[in-house]
Amino acid sequence: MASNLSFILNKPNDVSFEERPVPKLQHAHDVLVAINYTGICGSDVHYWQHGAIGHFVVKDPMVLGHESAGTVVEVGSAVKTLRKGDRIALEPGYPCRRCAPCLSGHYNLCPDMVFAATPPYHGTLTGFWTAPSDFCYKLPDNVSLQEGALIEPLAVAVHIVKQARVQPGQSVVVMGAGPVGLLCGAVARAFGATKVVAVDIVQGKLDFARGYAATHTYLSQRVSAEENGRRLVAEADLGGGADVVIDASGAGPSIQASLHVVRMGGTYVQGGMGKADISFPIMALCLKEVTARGSFRYGSGDYKLAIELVAAGKVDVKALVNGVVPFKDAEEAFKKVKEGQVIKILIAGPNEKVDGAMDTSVDEKKLKEAKAAGSTGCC
Amino acid sequence: MASNLSFILNKPNDVSFEERPVPKLQHAHDVLVAINYTGICGSDVHYWQHGAIGHFVVKDPMVLGHESAGTVVEVGSAVKTLRKGDRIALEPGYPCRRCAPCLSGHYNLCPDMVFAATPPYHGTLTGFWTAPSDFCYKLPDNVSLQEGALIEPLAVAVHIVKQARVQPGQSVVVMGAGPVGLLCGAVARAFGATKVVAVDIVQGKLDFARGYAATHTYLSQRVSAEENGRRLVAEADLGGGADVVIDASGAGPSIQASLHVVRMGGTYVQGGMGKADISFPIMALCLKEVTARGSFRYGSGDYKLAIELVAAGKVDVKALVNGVVPFKDAEEAFKKVKEGQVIKILIAGPNEKVDGAMDTSVDEKKLKEAKAAGSTGCC
Amino acid sequence: MASNLSFILNKPNDVSFEERPVPKLQHAHDVLVAINYTGICGSDVHYWQHGAIGHFVVKDPMVLGHESAGTVVEVGSAVKTLRKGDRIALEPGYPCRRCAPCLSGHYNLCPDMVFAATPPYHGTLTGFWTAPSDFCYKLPDNVSLQEGALIEPLAVAVHIVKQARVQPGQSVVVMGAGPVGLLCGAVARAFGATKVVAVDIVQGKLDFARGYAATHTYLSQRVSAEENGRRLVAEADLGGGADVVIDASGAGPSIQASLHVVRMGGTYVQGGMGKADISFPIMALCLKEVTARGSFRYGSGDYKLAIELVAAGKVDVKALVNGVVPFKDAEEAFKKVKEGQVIKILIAGPNEKVDGAMDTSVDEKKLKEAKAAGSTGCC
Amino acid sequence: MASNLSFILNKPNDVSFEERPVPKLQHAHDVLVAINYTGICGSDVHYWQHGAIGHFVVKDPMVLGHESAGTVVEVGSAVKTLRKGDRIALEPGYPCRRCAPCLSGHYNLCPDMVFAATPPYHGTLTGFWTAPSDFCYKLPDNVSLQEGALIEPLAVAVHIVKQARVQPGQSVVVMGAGPVGLLCGAVARAFGATKVVAVDIVQGKLDFARGYAATHTYLSQRVSAEENGRRLVAEADLGGGADVVIDASGAGPSIQASLHVVRMGGTYVQGGMGKADISFPIMALCLKEVTARGSFRYGSGDYKLAIELVAAGKVDVKALVNGVVPFKDAEEAFKKVKEGQVIKILIAGPNEKVDGAMDTSVDEKKLKEAKAAGSTGCC
Repeated sequence: MASNLSFILNKPNDVSFEERPVPKLQHAHDVLVAINYTGICGSDVHYWQHGAIGHFVVKDPMVLGHESAGTVVEVGSAVKTLRKGDRIALEPGYPCRRCAPCLSGHYNLCPDMVFAATPPYHGTLTGFWTAPSDFCYKLPDNVSLQEGALIEPLAVAVHIVKQARVQPGQSVVVMGAGPVGLLCGAVARAFGATKVVAVDIVQGKLDFARGYAATHTYLSQRVSAEENGRRLVAEADLGGGADVVIDASGAGPSIQASLHVVRMGGTYVQGGMGKADISFPIMALCLKEVTARGSFRYGSGDYKLAIELVAAGKVDVKALVNGVVPFKDAEEAFKKVKEGQVIKILIAGPNEKVDGAMDTSVDEKKLKEAKAAGSTGCC
Repeated sequence: MASNLSFILNKPNDVSFEERPVPKLQHAHDVLVAINYTGICGSDVHYWQHGAIGHFVVKDPMVLGHESAGTVVEVGSAVKTLRKGDRIALEPGYPCRRCAPCLSGHYNLCPDMVFAATPPYHGTLTGFWTAPSDFCYKLPDNVSLQEGALIEPLAVAVHIVKQARVQPGQSVVVMGAGPVGLLCGAVARAFGATKVVAVDIVQGKLDFARGYAATHTYLSQRVSAEENGRRLVAEADLGGGADVVIDASGAGPSIQASLHVVRMGGTYVQGGMGKADISFPIMALCLKEVTARGSFRYGSGDYKLAIELVAAGKVDVKALVNGVVPFKDAEEAFKKVKEGQVIKILIAGPNEKVDGAMDTSVDEKKLKEAKAAGSTGCC
Repeated sequence: MASNLSFILNKPNDVSFEERPVPKLQHAHDVLVAINYTGICGSDVHYWQHGAIGHFVVKDPMVLGHESAGTVVEVGSAVKTLRKGDRIALEPGYPCRRCAPCLSGHYNLCPDMVFAATPPYHGTLTGFWTAPSDFCYKLPDNVSLQEGALIEPLAVAVHIVKQARVQPGQSVVVMGAGPVGLLCGAVARAFGATKVVAVDIVQGKLDFARGYAATHTYLSQRVSAEENGRRLVAEADLGGGADVVIDASGAGPSIQASLHVVRMGGTYVQGGMGKADISFPIMALCLKEVTARGSFRYGSGDYKLAIELVAAGKVDVKALVNGVVPFKDAEEAFKKVKEGQVIKILIAGPNEKVDGAMDTSVDEKKLKEAKAAGSTGCC
Repeated sequence: MASNLSFILNKPNDVSFEERPVPKLQHAHDVLVAINYTGICGSDVHYWQHGAIGHFVVKDPMVLGHESAGTVVEVGSAVKTLRKGDRIALEPGYPCRRCAPCLSGHYNLCPDMVFAATPPYHGTLTGFWTAPSDFCYKLPDNVSLQEGALIEPLAVAVHIVKQARVQPGQSVVVMGAGPVGLLCGAVARAFGATKVVAVDIVQGKLDFARGYAATHTYLSQRVSAEENGRRLVAEADLGGGADVVIDASGAGPSIQASLHVVRMGGTYVQGGMGKADISFPIMALCLKEVTARGSFRYGSGDYKLAIELVAAGKVDVKALVNGVVPFKDAEEAFKKVKEGQVIKILIAGPNEKVDGAMDTSVDEKKLKEAKAAGSTGCC
C-alpha cells in the first residue's frame, strides 16, 4: 500500500513526519493525485521559522508545501478532462466560485480561498492530494514532472508580468534576483520585452540573472533611492525611464527606487512581500501619472500560460533547480533554502523513487555556483 | 484702446500691476482672446507666497493666473472652428505635439509643455492672451463666462475621475473637500457612482459637501490610518471597501487611509499634491491587488467633457463661487483664498465691466457660510 | 398546500397548465423561491410559435418563462446571504463555474450553461423554483417585486451598454425601440451619455422613446443604409458620427446603417437577434477602425447594477409595464405580446393574489397608447 | 548636382519619369531626406492600373510610392533628434496634430492626413523628400536601408496585431499569405502567440508561410465558410476556436470563415481591403461575443516597434525581398508585382548606386521559388 507520509510543522522550528490516511474523493469533480515533486517557497520557510505570516497563524500542526506536481491516480465521476496516469501541475488554492471576485474572473481575491499550507489548511508535502480537476493542469509530453513542480512560482511571475501589462518592445526593470525575480525577467522576455534589467544587492545573483534572462544588470548602491534610480536609468540607457518596473524584492529601498526609475506614464507592479508600511515617493506616482498595481498569487489562465511557456521553450525553469532530495530529507532541504545555498530545491514525494547521485542529493556543482553567487533563495 | 493690464508676481509676497503690450498672433492656428474672468488656484497662491513649487522657481517677474474664460477678438488665417466674438474656456497648457506622449494621446505628460503661470511662462491675469485655437473651447449658450472660468478646476476633476475609471453603480470615497475634491465628487456622480463619500478634517466643509454632491461624509479622526479606514468603511456602509478612493488632499494620513478603505481589486487615484515622500501601506496595495494611478493636470477630451457636464446640468460649478472682484482687487482676492475665507473667487479681466454690489464685491452671505464651514480653498 | 402549477409548451402553439411536484433543494447553496411575477420575452413567444430558436429545439414538453421575481421560502444549509422571506430578482441561467469562460469572469459564454426555458431546461412560469443563492439578488425595499421581474431585460440592456463601453458625454444611437432598445437608451443615459438617439420604423414607438429616455429620434426611411446613415447623422447633429451605435433590432438594414452612423474609432454593439448572415459594410468597419462587439445575455455584475439603477431612480422600468395578469391568463398574455399590443406584460405566479382591476387585467389606457404607438413588444 | 528624378503616374497605365525641383525645408521641424530604397505596395499598383481607390481619384499627375528608407541630408533649425547622415525609415503620412483623433493618440484617423501617393499628394519614388523629423525613424546600425524600406508594411502588420491585442500563448489565424499576412504571422509570433495558422487558396504561398512564421497552414476549400471554419479548427487543433483571427485578404469568403473560426469571446481584426459590402455572419459575432476591430494604416508607436522587432531579430523582413532594381526599371518592377512574380521588390532611389548582379536585377532564384509558390504580391 502506498504511503501518505506527510511533512508536518508542529510549531516554529519543530517539524515531524507522520503517516496520515490517504484522502478520499469528496466531490464528483475531484481527482486524487500522487505527489511526485514539491518545491520550497519562501512562505514555507517563513512558517517553519516563525509560525505565522501576517494574520495567518499556525495554531495546529500543519502539513507544509504547495509547489507540487503529481500523477492522477483516481478521478471523480464528473471528471472529463483528466484520466488516471495523467501527469499534472497542481494549482494549490481553491476558491469558493460564488463570490463577486470569483464570478468576475478574479478568484485569487476570493475571501474564502482554501490555500495549501496556509493555516488552517494542510499543504502538499504528503503522499496523496485531492483537488478539483479544473485546478489540475495536464503536462505536455515535453514537460517533466520536476519542471511541473516549478509551474507554481512561474505562475506567480506570469501573474506579475500580466499585472504589468508588458508589451513587446518595452523595457522592464526587475528589482530582486531571487527565484520570482528571475522568472519575472524570463516571462517579460517571453512577452516581448526587448530590455530586461535585473537589480539586486548581490553581484553573484546578478551574474546568474545575466546568464538567465536579463539583458542588463544593476548593482544597488548605498545611496539615496533617487540617486540609485538616476544611476540605473543611465547605466541601462533607459532614456526617460523604464516602461515597466517590477518589485520582486519587497524591500523598501527597491520600491522607492522603482518609482524614480519608471517613466512618465509607465507601470510599476508590487510583487514582493515585505514590511506593511514603507516610505514611498507618492508625488513621483502622482506627477508622472504612474499606474501601480499589486500582484497576489495567480489567477485565471496563469497556470495554463506558465505551462505553455515551458513547453514552447520560452522559459527555462530547470536552470533554477539546484537539486532533488528524497522526502526523508525535507527538513535538510528547508535548511539549505533558509541558508540561501540554493535557488530552488525539489523534494521528491514519499512514494517517488529517487535513484542515483544526481537525483538523490543536491547537485554539488550547481550548489557551489549558487553559493558563490550569493543566492538567498528568497523571492 | 483696450488695456492689457497684468497682475505680476515680482518675488514672494511682492505683486504689482503693469500695462504690457497686447500680444500679436504668431501662428496661423492661433487666436487672440480678451480675458473675462479668472479663478485663483492653490498653485497661484503658493507661487505668490513661496516663489516656487518643487523645481519650478520664479526667477523673473511672472504674470499669475491660469483658470480663465475669455472672448475671441481675432483669429489666425488657418482657424476654422472659432470666430470673433466666440466665448471660450481657455486650456492654459500648450504641448509640443511632437514627442511620444503627445503623439500617443497623453499630451499632459509632454516634457516641453508651455503652461500658463508656471515659470518661466506668464499667466492669464492679463487683458489679452494668444492660444492655439484647439485649446480654446467654445462655450454653449447656456454656460456663462463665469462658469467658463471654472472649467479648468473641473477639468482637473474630470481627469482624476477618468484615471479612476469610475463605473456606474460604484462607491467612490474622496479624501479632501476643497474645490477639487468637491468637483471630483460631482464628476463621480455624473459618471454614475451611486455612493460618494466626502472625507475631511473640517466638519463645515463636509456639511457643504453633503449639500453639494456627496451622499455620505466622514470626519477624519485622530486615530491610526487603519482605524480611520475601518470606521469610514463601517459608517458609510462600504462592505468590503470602496470601489474607488480618490485622494484630493495630498495629506499623508489621507493617502494612508485610502489604501485601507479601497476594496480588494479596487482603484485609488492620487490627485492632490503634497509632500514628496510619505509613509505608505505598500502591502495593502500588493495583497489587495489595488490599482493606483497618479493624475496630473488634464488631457485629451477633458475640457470638452467638463463643459458638457456643466451644459447638461450634471455639475453645478456656480455653487462654488463666493464672489467676483474687479481686476484691481486681485491681491485682495488672493488674500481671501489664502486665508480660507472662500471656496472659489473670480477676478474680472481688466477690460471687464463689473457693475453692482453682487458682482463687484465678494458675496458676503456666501462668504460667511464658507467661513463658518471652515473652507480653506485649498484642494 | 401551495400550488406548483406550471405553464407548459407541448409543441408549437400547444400550451397547457399542469400541477408539477414542488422542487426540493439539491445543494447546500441553493434556495427555494416562490415565483411572484414573470415577464414575457420575445424568445418565449418564439418558442411558443415555432418550437425552436436556432439549434435549440423543444423536443419534450417545457415550462416557459425566465424573467421572474420571487420570494425565498427555504434556504440550503450553506446559504449566508439570503433568508426566508427575502424578495429577489432571479437570474435564470446557471453556469458550470469550472470552464475557462467561467473562471475568467465570462460565465455567460459557458458552454454548459443551464438556462431557464431554453430546451431541454424548464422555465419559471411555475409556482416554485430552486436556484443557487448567488444567482438570486435581494431587492432593496424601494424596488417592488413587479419591478423585480423586469430586472432580467434590464440586465440584458446593462450588458449591451457595458459591451459598448459607453462613457459620460458620449452620443449613443440605439437601433430598435422595443423593450430592450428602450432600456438600452435608459441605461446609456445612466452611464452619462448626453445624446441618445432612438431609431425605429414605427413613429409611435419613437414617440414613446422620446418620452422615455431618448433625446432625439430618427424614423428609418426606405432608402439605402448609407443614405439613412447620412440623414440620421444630420438630423441628430452627430457631426462626424456617433460615438456608439447599438443595434437592438437584429434587422439587416439597421445593422448596415449602424456602420455608416458610427464615427471614426467609434464602437458598435450587436445586441438584437435576427438572421444568421446579412449584407455588411465591412470596409466601413475596417477604414474607420470601428470596434464591434456582440452581446449575449448578461454576466458578472449585470443583475446587481440593474437593480441599483432601478433603486437609485436612474432607470424607470415600471413605465414599460402595460399590465399584470393572473397565472391562468398566461396564454392570453402571450397573445397580446405576439400581437404587439403591449411593451411588457407581467404574469402573476400561481400562488399570487391579484386583486382589483388595475392588477388583474391589462391597463386599458396604457394598452391603447401602446397600440397607437405601434408597439410590437419584440426586442 | 543630385537628381530629383521622380516616377509619375499620369493616368491609368501611363507612367513617366520627370526631373522635379529638389524640395526645400519649409518648417523648422522638417528634414530633407535622400531616398535610398522604396518598396511597392498593392495600393501603388492599384492606382497605376485603375487611377483610383474608392473616393481617392488621381486627377493630376502624381508621384507614386510610399514605402521608403532614406538618408538625412539637411535638418531644420528646431530638429534635435536627427542629424545629417542618419539613415531613416520614413513614415509617409502626416497628420494635422490638432483634431480630436490626433490629440487623443489616434492620428491615423486624422481627417486631414497628408499621405504620400494618395491623391492629391505626391509619393516617395523620387530623389528627395521633406518630412517632419518625428516621422523619420533612425535605423539602428544592424538594420540596413533595404530593411528600412520594409518597415512600412511591417508597421501595417504591427498595427493589425496590436488591434487584435494578441497575448502570449494565444492561437492566431491569419487569412491571406501575401506580404502583410506573412508579416502579421511574424509579428503575432513576436507578441508571444504559440500557434499561428496561415490560410490561403494557393498551396505555394502556404509553403512559404510555413517556412517563415506559421506553425500551421490551411488551404481554403471550395466549401461553405462554415465548413471551411470547421475544417480549419479541426486541422489546426484549435479546440473551441482561435483566440484571434486576422483577415489580411479582404476576400468575402475569408472574412465569413473568420467569424466561424474565432472562439467564444475571441477577437477578429479586419486588416485587408476589398469589397465595400459582403455577406457577414452577424449572429456568430453576436452570440459568441466576438470583438471585431478594423485596422487602418499605422499609428503611435508602430514604426518604432517595427524597427525594434527587426533590430532584435524577431521579424525577418529580408526574407520577403525578391530583388532590388535601379530607379529606371520602376515600371518593370510594378509589372512583376502586378503579375504576382514576387513577394516584395525594392526600387533603388535615383541617386542610389546599384552595383553587381545581385542588386541590380531581381534575384532569379528567389523569383522562381516565389513564382512556383504562386506568390501574388497582393496583401
